[in-house]
Amino acid sequence: MDTYLERLGARTRSVGSVLCVGVDPVPEALPDGFSRDLAGIERFCEVLLDAAVPYAAAVKPNLAFFEAFGSAGLAALERLRARIPTEVLFVGDAKRGDIGTTAARQAAALFDMLGCDAITVNPYLGSEAVEPLIGRGDRFAYLLCRTSNPGAGELQSLEVGADPEIGAPAEPLYARVARRARSWGPGGTVGLVVGATAPVELEKIRGIAPELALLVPGVGAQGGDVDSVLRHGPAGAPPAGSWPGGGLLVNVSRGIAGAASGTGAGTLPSGSLPRPPTGPPASDCRRRPRSPGNRRAGRRPERDRLSPCAARPNGSTRPPSWAAPLPPAKSTSGS
Amino acid sequence: MDTYLERLGARTRSVGSVLCVGVDPVPEALPDGFSRDLAGIERFCEVLLDAAVPYAAAVKPNLAFFEAFGSAGLAALERLRARIPTEVLFVGDAKRGDIGTTAARQAAALFDMLGCDAITVNPYLGSEAVEPLIGRGDRFAYLLCRTSNPGAGELQSLEVGADPEIGAPAEPLYARVARRARSWGPGGTVGLVVGATAPVELEKIRGIAPELALLVPGVGAQGGDVDSVLRHGPAGAPPAGSWPGGGLLVNVSRGIAGAASGTGAGTLPSGSLPRPPTGPPASDCRRRPRSPGNRRAGRRPERDRLSPCAARPNGSTRPPSWAAPLPPAKSTSGS
Repeated sequence: MDTYLERLGARTRSVGSVLCVGVDPVPEALPDGFSRDLAGIERFCEVLLDAAVPYAAAVKPNLAFFEAFGSAGLAALERLRARIPTEVLFVGDAKRGDIGTTAARQAAALFDMLGCDAITVNPYLGSEAVEPLIGRGDRFAYLLCRTSNPGAGELQSLEVGADPEIGAPAEPLYARVARRARSWGPGGTVGLVVGATAPVELEKIRGIAPELALLVPGVGAQGGDVDSVLRHGPAGAPPAGSWPGGGLLVNVSRGIAGAASGTGAGTLPSGSLPRPPTGPPASDCRRRPRSPGNRRAGRRPERDRLSPCAARPNGSTRPPSWAAPLPPAKSTSGS
Repeated sequence: MDTYLERLGARTRSVGSVLCVGVDPVPEALPDGFSRDLAGIERFCEVLLDAAVPYAAAVKPNLAFFEAFGSAGLAALERLRARIPTEVLFVGDAKRGDIGTTAARQAAALFDMLGCDAITVNPYLGSEAVEPLIGRGDRFAYLLCRTSNPGAGELQSLEVGADPEIGAPAEPLYARVARRARSWGPGGTVGLVVGATAPVELEKIRGIAPELALLVPGVGAQGGDVDSVLRHGPAGAPPAGSWPGGGLLVNVSRGIAGAASGTGAGTLPSGSLPRPPTGPPASDCRRRPRSPGNRRAGRRPERDRLSPCAARPNGSTRPPSWAAPLPPAKSTSGS
C-alpha cells in the first residue's frame, strides 16, 4: 500500500509541478457557451479537468460548490471524480470534523464513497474526535491551521498560553495547532492548510512543523505571496520532506478556471490551456540555485514558478533532498 | 418574516418541550425488519420521524450519516426533509465553515437546497468568513463552542490571553468563542453548541453569553448532565430569553432511535414511542417553582424533564419570562 505522501511525491516528480487545480465552479463565472446551471457546471469542469489534469499534481474540488445543487450536484461531482486518473491525487476540500461517531461517517462519505485521497479537516474538536479522518494509512488529512481569508486571525491568531508538557511557548492558536498536529494520527497522514495570504505565519508554521506537508490556497485571486510559498512551503524533514516537492501543494482555483476562457468570462478556445510537454525532459534544478537575496530582484516568469525546483525548504540555497532531474516545469496560468 | 427564534419559541410552547430529535442513523444499529442499507435507513427514519416529530421542537439530522451513502444518501435526506412540517424546526447538523466565497455556497446548499432553518457552523475561520452562514435574518447558525466529545478540550480549553478591547479576561478558547459570538451576525441569528458532557463549561458560557440560544448535544448515550442543561441552558436575556424555552434545544439521538425498538436493537413494535397528548392541557409551570437546593433531592421523572417548565435560566427560582401555561410535558424516552 503506497502512502499518500509517496504517491504525491511520485506525481510531483512526474509532472514537475506542485500545482493543485482547485475546482470551485459558480454558474455566474462560467464562460459563454456553458449553461448557467448544474449541467453547465459539469460540462465546464469536464473541459477544465481534461485540460489541466496533465499538468497537475492534484485536483481539489470544494464540495460546497457541488452541494449547492443538492444531491444532483453531489452526483455530478461523483461523475467528475471518475474522470480523474488514479495517479492524480484527489483532494476533497470539505472542511469536515465532528465527534468520533460522526467523523467515522464523514470518513465513509469522503474516502469510501467519493474516493478522496486526501481531505481538509477542521481541527477545532481535537484529535480524539477526528481520528477516523486522520488515522488511515493510505489516506491523508490537511488540518486547517492558518486559513487564507482576511479575518482568519480573529480566532486563529489568539495568543494561547505556554504548555511546558509539550515544550510549547505562548504562541498564536494557529501555531499551537501546527505544533499539536505533529503528533496527530499514526504518522505521515496529517498535513496543514496554510494560506499564501499569510507569509509571516507560513514561515512560523514551517519552523514549528518542518516535516508536515502543506496545502497552500490563496494564490491568485486572493493575492497570496507565491515567493513565500515556494520558499517555506516544502517540508525540510521526513516524512513529507523525503519526497519530490516536499509534500507541498499550491492550489490555484479561479486563476485556472479563468484561463480556460482566456479572460475568465469569454468563450473557451480550444488549446488555451497549455498541453503536456513533448520536448526533451530533465532540466536539473540543482544547476540553478537561488539565494534568498535575489528572490525579488530575479523574479522568474510564472510559467515555472510552481515547479518543485522553484521551492526551497526554509530558504536554503542548498538543493533539498528531493531536488532531482525533472522535466521542464509547465505554465499554470493562474498563480 | 418570522425569525428562527420566534418560530422556535412558538413550537416549544406548542409541544411543551425543548426536545430536538437527532437523526444519525447507522445500518448496524437498525432494528430487525429494516434492511442494513440506505433503503433501510430511509424507512427507519420515516418511522422514527413520524413517531417523534409530534413531540419535538426541532429535528436535527447529521448530514454525514446520509452523505456516507453518497449522492443517493443526500437524496434520501432531501426526501425525509420534505416530510417535516413547517412548524418543526429543521436543524442541519453539518459543522460547515469556509472562506466567504465558499461559505456562500454552503449557505446555498444548506438553507436553499436542503431547506434548513438552522445549521451548525465551525467558528475557526472567524466571523468574516462565515458571514453567509450567520447573516440571514430568517435562518440561524449554532456555532461550535464547547463540543461534547471527550477530547474537546485539546484546543477548546486552551487559555487565550486577555483582550482589553472587548473587555475579555484571559479565558479558555471556548469562552472566547462564546464572547465573540455575541457580536457575530446581525443579531438574533447566532447561537452556540455546548455539550451536556461539559456542565462546568456550560455554566461559564451561559454567564458570558446570557442572551444566546444553545443547542445541547451529549444527553443520553454520551452521558451528559441533564440537570445542568435544564438549569443553565435557557437564555436569561433577549433575544433568545424572550421566547418559551429560552432558545434551548436539547438533542437526543441514540436514545430516541433506540426507543423506537424498545431495546435499541430489537423489533419495532407499533406504538412504542409515545403519542401526542389527548388529555387535559395547561398545567402551569409557574405553580411548581424549583429551587437550586432541591435539584438533586427532588429528581423528577425523565418524562417531563425536557419541558421548558423544567428549565430555569442561571438557576433562578423565579419563573423566567417565557414560563407560561403549557400543555403537559411528554416523554422523551432517551434523555
